[in-house]
Amino acid sequence: MAFDPARLRYNDQGLIPAIAQEAETGEVLMMAWMNAEAVRRTLDTGRATYWSRSRQAFWVKGETSGHTQEVVDVRIDCDEDTILLLVRQTGAACHTGRRVCFYRSVLDGEVRELLAPMG
Amino acid sequence: MAFDPARLRYNDQGLIPAIAQEAETGEVLMMAWMNAEAVRRTLDTGRATYWSRSRQAFWVKGETSGHTQEVVDVRIDCDEDTILLLVRQTGAACHTGRRVCFYRSVLDGEVRELLAPMG
Repeated sequence: MAFDPARLRYNDQGLIPAIAQEAETGEVLMMAWMNAEAVRRTLDTGRATYWSRSRQAFWVKGETSGHTQEVVDVRIDCDEDTILLLVRQTGAACHTGRRVCFYRSVLDGEVRELLAPMG
Repeated sequence: MAFDPARLRYNDQGLIPAIAQEAETGEVLMMAWMNAEAVRRTLDTGRATYWSRSRQAFWVKGETSGHTQEVVDVRIDCDEDTILLLVRQTGAACHTGRRVCFYRSVLDGEVRELLAPMG
């Protein structure tokens, strides 16, 4: 069956959450948002392309930082309202300079940092 | 620093996306939503507890299906607007009976199923 990005289920802002996972290691790197055009661009270019809610603009990951995400696979979930990207991440996925955005654990009722920024 | 679930950044419906990842294998199982009370219950009970948008009710994963998620760690991201749960998943995470919800690839412009329901 042909895939039509317009047929995914977007929220009332026309956005769908996209999880980026490192293809080799399985690390969950980050979560960001896409609109239908960002999904199309990601598929067409093989470069993860999100929609920046703060800047209201397309955001090709790594365009300015060099921390690109080469797309290895694009998965959709059962409800067609979430995307999982398998990527090869160059450098830090997180704008704080850390490899991944999920660098804090809150399991024990305390906030503990697990990761330092990359050197 | 003490962790206060109320200080996470929820959307205008009071919800935050929560990604569930299998702690042992790294599989991204599913994405669902939590409100602040669901975050508290998840931390307090060690059982992944979401907010069902369709039923407008708390949803203890596996409560009816037996496909529970034992919480191994709870991570928050840089922007404090997404949660990553590391879990031990019993059986299928997906309501379709598949191990994970992200069982379809759309990389090549076609929808391809990668996983069958568990036997």
